[in-house]
Amino acid sequence: MTKLAFELLSLENNVFKAYLFWTAFLVLKMLFMSLITGFMRFRTMTFINEEDLLDKRLKVKYNDPHVERARRAHRNDLENILPFFTIGFLYVLLDPNATLAINLFRAVGISRIIHTIVYAIAPVPQPSRLLAFLVPVCATTYMAYEVVRAVY
Amino acid sequence: MTKLAFELLSLENNVFKAYLFWTAFLVLKMLFMSLITGFMRFRTMTFINEEDLLDKRLKVKYNDPHVERARRAHRNDLENILPFFTIGFLYVLLDPNATLAINLFRAVGISRIIHTIVYAIAPVPQPSRLLAFLVPVCATTYMAYEVVRAVY
Amino acid sequence: MTKLAFELLSLENNVFKAYLFWTAFLVLKMLFMSLITGFMRFRTMTFINEEDLLDKRLKVKYNDPHVERARRAHRNDLENILPFFTIGFLYVLLDPNATLAINLFRAVGISRIIHTIVYAIAPVPQPSRLLAFLVPVCATTYMAYEVVRAVY
Repeated sequence: MTKLAFELLSLENNVFKAYLFWTAFLVLKMLFMSLITGFMRFRTMTFINEEDLLDKRLKVKYNDPHVERARRAHRNDLENILPFFTIGFLYVLLDPNATLAINLFRAVGISRIIHTIVYAIAPVPQPSRLLAFLVPVCATTYMAYEVVRAVY
Repeated sequence: MTKLAFELLSLENNVFKAYLFWTAFLVLKMLFMSLITGFMRFRTMTFINEEDLLDKRLKVKYNDPHVERARRAHRNDLENILPFFTIGFLYVLLDPNATLAINLFRAVGISRIIHTIVYAIAPVPQPSRLLAFLVPVCATTYMAYEVVRAVY
Repeated sequence: MTKLAFELLSLENNVFKAYLFWTAFLVLKMLFMSLITGFMRFRTMTFINEEDLLDKRLKVKYNDPHVERARRAHRNDLENILPFFTIGFLYVLLDPNATLAINLFRAVGISRIIHTIVYAIAPVPQPSRLLAFLVPVCATTYMAYEVVRAVY
């Protein structure tokens, strides 16, 4: 943190630009998960609230495997992408090596897209999903470690 | 981003003030969801952990519809409000048009209160909840789009 | 907010340093929850996706109590720690009393570790978990209140 925060939080800073891009991209990806879940609900006619039933002959239904799969993928996003948003921002404020930081953000972003595809859209055999899960976990862990180290 | 970050992140900036207000307000609203779920658990005596049973004659119980409804409303908050916190902040750093930005934050905040009411407190027929869900989704999508656009 | 944002978001500011430390620490703690859930899945052979089954003789299984307990603890983190990340950062920008702010962050961090231990690792009788839940809720509520107050 030799530079001041206001120099780092500017479009002159390529690390911050990469953070802006991948964060905005992942926000859009997360919102898209609701669409997938909604689509699965309509395709399988699985509605969980009385007021959502489109037809009086329908009944509330739980645990459709397609709907639940989309919901698990979405929850996995909450567990992994949201902490990245916070720690990635703090990492930018540490003025890290640009090449490393930009590639970390890129790795997180691309892995999470792959995670969504292999989990919610077109399930494939493991370890595809495991790897797409582990890359962002490792990147986030590294950034969190760097933040802790900067404090001492 | 013609202005510097430190001018934008100040109480002189009405856009940042609106962000501060609605973010803090929505944090309080989200914490309140735990209260609603807790209230529903006590009213229906639905406790999910052995150590939470108030009386030895009670047994752990899952899937009470009132409790589950409150939990779904809370989860929907996690899926929609938390990404807004991040993208709203980055949007403030882009120095957007003040009237537009303030009204976007207001629309998100008010819609999410309505969402909580019509989902967890007093369920009403659709499309009330759908609309209260879609307004923040559109506002968040627009802000994320603006952030992506600013990078190029 | 008499000081400018760039003075507050620097390693010269002990309040920001405490925020950096506890936020990074809690990000690591949250990622660790996935490990606990994974460990419980393997110990009880409870796999929820077809593609995760290690052996053709295994079947997908839901609702193992140990796995579900770990997942509930993780979800409770999402509900409480993630809003703290946002409001804690905004609170730092208000240039609060250093002793108070540092102890609030510390109370949140330590309570959430205790919460994880008594919920997911070694369940103990109540009100242990209730207290470990309430301390961060009160701290977060106070910070959100201070943010709302600063706007007026």
